[in-house]
Amino acid sequence: MDSSFLKEITPQLIKWRRTLHALPELGFMEYITTYRIGKELEKMGFKLYLGKDALDENSRMGLPAKADLEAQEKKARDWGVEESWLDQMRGGNTGLVAVWDTGRNGDHVGFRFDIDALPIKESADPAHRPAKYEFGSKEENVMHSCGHDGHTAIGLGVAQYISSHGDQLKGRFTLLFQPAEEGGRGARAMTDMGWLDDVDYFYSGHIGIKSLPVGTIAATTPGFLASTKYNAYFKGVSSHAGINPELGKNALLAATTAANNLYGIPRHHDGVTRVNVGKLAAGSGRNIIPGDSYMEIEVRGETPEIAQYMAEKATRIIKAAADMHDVSCTIEAVGVTEVVVCDKELIPKITEWCASSELVKEVLPSVPVSGSEDVSFMMNRVQKHGGKATFMLFGTKLDYPHHHPQFDFEEEALLVAVDAYIHILNGGSAI
Amino acid sequence: MDSSFLKEITPQLIKWRRTLHALPELGFMEYITTYRIGKELEKMGFKLYLGKDALDENSRMGLPAKADLEAQEKKARDWGVEESWLDQMRGGNTGLVAVWDTGRNGDHVGFRFDIDALPIKESADPAHRPAKYEFGSKEENVMHSCGHDGHTAIGLGVAQYISSHGDQLKGRFTLLFQPAEEGGRGARAMTDMGWLDDVDYFYSGHIGIKSLPVGTIAATTPGFLASTKYNAYFKGVSSHAGINPELGKNALLAATTAANNLYGIPRHHDGVTRVNVGKLAAGSGRNIIPGDSYMEIEVRGETPEIAQYMAEKATRIIKAAADMHDVSCTIEAVGVTEVVVCDKELIPKITEWCASSELVKEVLPSVPVSGSEDVSFMMNRVQKHGGKATFMLFGTKLDYPHHHPQFDFEEEALLVAVDAYIHILNGGSAI
Amino acid sequence: MDSSFLKEITPQLIKWRRTLHALPELGFMEYITTYRIGKELEKMGFKLYLGKDALDENSRMGLPAKADLEAQEKKARDWGVEESWLDQMRGGNTGLVAVWDTGRNGDHVGFRFDIDALPIKESADPAHRPAKYEFGSKEENVMHSCGHDGHTAIGLGVAQYISSHGDQLKGRFTLLFQPAEEGGRGARAMTDMGWLDDVDYFYSGHIGIKSLPVGTIAATTPGFLASTKYNAYFKGVSSHAGINPELGKNALLAATTAANNLYGIPRHHDGVTRVNVGKLAAGSGRNIIPGDSYMEIEVRGETPEIAQYMAEKATRIIKAAADMHDVSCTIEAVGVTEVVVCDKELIPKITEWCASSELVKEVLPSVPVSGSEDVSFMMNRVQKHGGKATFMLFGTKLDYPHHHPQFDFEEEALLVAVDAYIHILNGGSAI
Amino acid sequence: MDSSFLKEITPQLIKWRRTLHALPELGFMEYITTYRIGKELEKMGFKLYLGKDALDENSRMGLPAKADLEAQEKKARDWGVEESWLDQMRGGNTGLVAVWDTGRNGDHVGFRFDIDALPIKESADPAHRPAKYEFGSKEENVMHSCGHDGHTAIGLGVAQYISSHGDQLKGRFTLLFQPAEEGGRGARAMTDMGWLDDVDYFYSGHIGIKSLPVGTIAATTPGFLASTKYNAYFKGVSSHAGINPELGKNALLAATTAANNLYGIPRHHDGVTRVNVGKLAAGSGRNIIPGDSYMEIEVRGETPEIAQYMAEKATRIIKAAADMHDVSCTIEAVGVTEVVVCDKELIPKITEWCASSELVKEVLPSVPVSGSEDVSFMMNRVQKHGGKATFMLFGTKLDYPHHHPQFDFEEEALLVAVDAYIHILNGGSAI
Repeated sequence: MDSSFLKEITPQLIKWRRTLHALPELGFMEYITTYRIGKELEKMGFKLYLGKDALDENSRMGLPAKADLEAQEKKARDWGVEESWLDQMRGGNTGLVAVWDTGRNGDHVGFRFDIDALPIKESADPAHRPAKYEFGSKEENVMHSCGHDGHTAIGLGVAQYISSHGDQLKGRFTLLFQPAEEGGRGARAMTDMGWLDDVDYFYSGHIGIKSLPVGTIAATTPGFLASTKYNAYFKGVSSHAGINPELGKNALLAATTAANNLYGIPRHHDGVTRVNVGKLAAGSGRNIIPGDSYMEIEVRGETPEIAQYMAEKATRIIKAAADMHDVSCTIEAVGVTEVVVCDKELIPKITEWCASSELVKEVLPSVPVSGSEDVSFMMNRVQKHGGKATFMLFGTKLDYPHHHPQFDFEEEALLVAVDAYIHILNGGSAI
Repeated sequence: MDSSFLKEITPQLIKWRRTLHALPELGFMEYITTYRIGKELEKMGFKLYLGKDALDENSRMGLPAKADLEAQEKKARDWGVEESWLDQMRGGNTGLVAVWDTGRNGDHVGFRFDIDALPIKESADPAHRPAKYEFGSKEENVMHSCGHDGHTAIGLGVAQYISSHGDQLKGRFTLLFQPAEEGGRGARAMTDMGWLDDVDYFYSGHIGIKSLPVGTIAATTPGFLASTKYNAYFKGVSSHAGINPELGKNALLAATTAANNLYGIPRHHDGVTRVNVGKLAAGSGRNIIPGDSYMEIEVRGETPEIAQYMAEKATRIIKAAADMHDVSCTIEAVGVTEVVVCDKELIPKITEWCASSELVKEVLPSVPVSGSEDVSFMMNRVQKHGGKATFMLFGTKLDYPHHHPQFDFEEEALLVAVDAYIHILNGGSAI
Repeated sequence: MDSSFLKEITPQLIKWRRTLHALPELGFMEYITTYRIGKELEKMGFKLYLGKDALDENSRMGLPAKADLEAQEKKARDWGVEESWLDQMRGGNTGLVAVWDTGRNGDHVGFRFDIDALPIKESADPAHRPAKYEFGSKEENVMHSCGHDGHTAIGLGVAQYISSHGDQLKGRFTLLFQPAEEGGRGARAMTDMGWLDDVDYFYSGHIGIKSLPVGTIAATTPGFLASTKYNAYFKGVSSHAGINPELGKNALLAATTAANNLYGIPRHHDGVTRVNVGKLAAGSGRNIIPGDSYMEIEVRGETPEIAQYMAEKATRIIKAAADMHDVSCTIEAVGVTEVVVCDKELIPKITEWCASSELVKEVLPSVPVSGSEDVSFMMNRVQKHGGKATFMLFGTKLDYPHHHPQFDFEEEALLVAVDAYIHILNGGSAI
Repeated sequence: MDSSFLKEITPQLIKWRRTLHALPELGFMEYITTYRIGKELEKMGFKLYLGKDALDENSRMGLPAKADLEAQEKKARDWGVEESWLDQMRGGNTGLVAVWDTGRNGDHVGFRFDIDALPIKESADPAHRPAKYEFGSKEENVMHSCGHDGHTAIGLGVAQYISSHGDQLKGRFTLLFQPAEEGGRGARAMTDMGWLDDVDYFYSGHIGIKSLPVGTIAATTPGFLASTKYNAYFKGVSSHAGINPELGKNALLAATTAANNLYGIPRHHDGVTRVNVGKLAAGSGRNIIPGDSYMEIEVRGETPEIAQYMAEKATRIIKAAADMHDVSCTIEAVGVTEVVVCDKELIPKITEWCASSELVKEVLPSVPVSGSEDVSFMMNRVQKHGGKATFMLFGTKLDYPHHHPQFDFEEEALLVAVDAYIHILNGGSAI
């Protein structure tokens, strides 16, 4: 294997990651991000399917408001995204698919890299590496605090390898750069385009999750939590809070009562559950009984049955809270992730293939996580057609948890991940 | 008296009101409103004190965010407000004072007209008069739903009378067009400039409040509720809601728990109380434990003691809710209104003066309201220096309460109010 | 008038009060109390109607549990209540009516004295008079902390006067010693027996309420709050809290959510409101998801409309809280009080009649209270048939509020009340 | 082995179980239960250590109220428990230890059987076996709904075997019939007496937990949840809810706010958590602002760290809820259970020993449960001194969960358990 490749690519890998980190974009608004990725892959010689060609518009969930999309499109144009690219992405059709066909018989191997950021204000603490090395987010309240900047950089690294070693590889490679993983909103739309329907091996993964040493990776995870994401809209009647409080129908109290009770959905004996009210906005002015409110929630469960249990409890609570305060309510499902089972036969293979890697020190067979991932849609599709799929972890020490304003990872983890994927590529599909 | 005046001014009065209604502006952002009022008064020949000359910058409370002020200033410039006017108002120094000196000995009479709107989305229901006659708010989420558009029109009507009958009047007239009445934020800043320190008679009033027939007015109200307005900021720690829920410190739950308990502050045996959480915003994204939240609240009491009782209970609840969820919290007082006692000797006078009005059918001595008004600062200042002050009501049938998206009033009430003030002017201070 | 009467009766009055205070009984369980009252009135020569003859069994509301009634009946028997008396009262038919007919033409005058105590543990603080003078409650968790011990003593004092001055009086006197005033449960049952249907003047009253000097009395009150009292029973499903939390249907959470939201029913612009969850019991054991819960609540309003508003909001909240936690619920109305209007023409009369009293220093025309009283049923009945009715207050300094473990009153107030009633009797109905 | 033994004992086993089921007693009040067990063991020839000789009084936790203990002692005396036995148990010193020494060298084997019931009202549904066969609880609100009646019967069955086969066995046997397992209150008190300090093998177990077929048993469980149990007492100030609501300090609202927030303690990524408010009692009367309230809660965690996390969150919430409503609060720890690790080397042994049992069809190595058990104290003590310990499960189909009013088990499970223990006895310690 070509051990000089990693050495060469290291500065590039870190540059990609930091550049992406400094300009984070929320789900379905990754116009600049997609453009940047696309221009790199274009140079490498991949065949690209952009935006509306990469995903099924109608399968997207939880699309941002039109005004937000347009503002971001304007920003992208001002930044320099070409008009033809923008046309292809307009209206929240971000992300792209890159295909490389060696022309030689061999497996079809798929990879998923997620590219979106989160609505978190990044820490400016000098102890926070991005602040210290001046690649912190330039966007007011958006941040790559789940490592997708790293995932994207890893994807570009793998692409670079394929491009520069294409003559030594066989089969086909499909790289999905997926928008809107946060909230479980984008994977289904890519999956529904059929990219994965004849894939033999499918790999995806995550930096961190558990705090593990750099060099330690996990070949599989025992599975994700199935999850459902809801928006709830409460509609009451506003009124003057001093003069006619009794004429109001208080949508704020409906939402706060729902929130407090949602967190109290009973734990389930049969497995892990989660519930979160991630966002609540109610009312318009101080002396007005709030006539409107809005909540973003998600529930998760370790099995489809538990996920269903959580979803039923949650909708019951929301509806009753509305009824309690005599307001109406609409509940909208805006995201779903499925449970998934990694193919266990990949464990010894990955372990064997990575044995010769200098960077991968240890391959753990399986490390549990309690997150949810819409890559579940992709993995389930691959497996349904007879392919094998796994979701790996790439170790890094974590000083702060994912989604924290000071989340960061050790950039050496990028190299480990790229090297692991290269060994897998060679082991699994190359000569 | 000049009975043809009202006939002449009627179309103008309604036009003023509708024009103002269609372009509502929130407190301390009434750039266009102030400009419009000023240009009219300029034409009438009043001496004007604009913005920074009209109020004490440092006595303003609850100023909007800098970005919001700047956005509104830009909008005002685009709309056509002259740069010199804007300079005088920049940074939330809206409102103006208009003075007319007859040059003849006589009383100094003061009037207060409030000019701000509310953050409410106006109804587009065709049964709603502004929608039907196409003068509904053109601003997305701002609305004159407390009648201040009418108050401003009344003020202009009174000014027009003074201007056109100046030679028949004696003494001096000071008209305060006050910003930011909602939230009790603007009156003190005008009062602190000393405009009222030698005023002999001071009048202000409100359209509606109680649903009374057009033509019925109240000479006084028994008083307002004292009130305090707070913003509360909760600061916790965000975390991934699936992977590390236990690492989050949930600022949303602190706010919702506070809200639910605030409404339960015990009633007080000694008089009326009010409490409202008018706005609550928490969290940033669905799968993030909310690290930040924010609430706008107000508490009111019929006496200073009850108002104090409410304020103490409210701050205790907010602090304990923060402590319960291990988050920090900052409570900021952003508005205050005082209790006030209307001068009862004005009741027989107003009744007598208005007896000859064709439009004023009935003068009720006193009608109770349970609102709060920062005109209390002005009235208390006038009375402290020996002047007499009252707050009147001008009847209109009300189909919807104040602060409702369909709030509206009968425009005949504008004429009644102007005519009542004219009779008071003539009775009280003119020859 | 016989001024020596009061002097003579003073020690007896205080003894009655203290004896009653030391042995308080809850509503519909006043077996010993009724017996004591009856034995005194028997000695005085009144015609008595006891228990089942005094009230309509079926009109009672909020009867205690059968087991509690039986336990109290046993206690009464052990204490020495005669079996024939017990038979007449068994099953919660306490209270009695005492009638005196002078045989001479004249008005029919009615009085109501309430006799029940409250479920409060009396303070043993040595600064608390009953503790200091050793007449504190001997019952563990029952206490006369609303002054009904005093009311009963006043009733006996008035009866003693009628008995000893019967030859100087004219007309008829009906004294109702009413059970179960607390909770508004007993008055209707007495009223329904028709005792008041031809009463010309009806008097009742309360010690304290406002802290007024001894010697100050109020001739009327502007009215009571109408009130409704509910019991709510939530029925869920218990389950092991560790092993199968998800199988429980949590009746405790239904009740606590209801309670927190009940206190937040919006204030009403048109008058006073009250809400209280006076009792809540839920669950059976620590590691069991609570399958049952129970709440005692009451709501009040200054007008029938406001009372209705409060009742509707309360039942909506309770039902929705049950629904939220998937438990069933039963709401039972267990007590009602009405609004009432005292006859204003009694104000000058009472003032005049009491002018010659040495003990009554001042008669206030009307003092507002924000309590509820089921004497409202009696007053409304009297007025419906053309009689005049009022509810008076008898001043005492109050160091602690009513229903407080240290509630107490100045015993001089008893003398004032008896003297006021004697003057009213003589002024209003005697020669 | 003596296969006729089981046949003979079957009717007795079922009779024991049903007799115990019909007369359930709560923790530390098992006076009749202990007496019944003791009389049986006495007949069998065991050396008995009763009550105060069996446990360390001062190590008991969560003792019932004195009045409840005395009432139950009176009931036991009336029922026929001998005075000398009662003396030995008075004051909540129930339970006993039975020792059998074969006089031959061999292992010291310990067993724990828990004997207490739960405060649940048993179902009278004819589909519920105890109701159908008329051995349902005769106590109003107490029920064996966790199978401890079965555990006790199993213990007697094992004892009968030891007694009748004593000449074939070697070593010593110590059988602990433990009071107050529910709430984790009794095990430590027995452990502290040193009964287990030289035990070589220690067995305990549970009927049911998971719904498994009769005949299936589990040799170990992966562990219990560590738990802490608290009582919280809130002390506020009562007041008249109509007249002076503002003078009350509402202990009910403190408790309900705490309860609603306790259920919302965030889930923990690292393992199972549980929280329950099993009991809440607040207030005394409907029209009194509640001055007192009381809660029984428990929190659990899969690891000591998680249990500690839950305990810290819970106490924080309770204290803040008290502070929010300006009431004081006392938190008392009344029960604790530990985590435990079953000795895995017992798995192959138990599997082997039970292979010859006709009743044991399948031995599962390990079945997870999410309950807590204070047998953890005993197991940890045995292991600390070098012994081996396990906690087994005995399968039965479960139609209703543990702690449900219709909980029941298949009585064949009793036979399986006795047979399993007999095989273990013979395999592990007999010749």
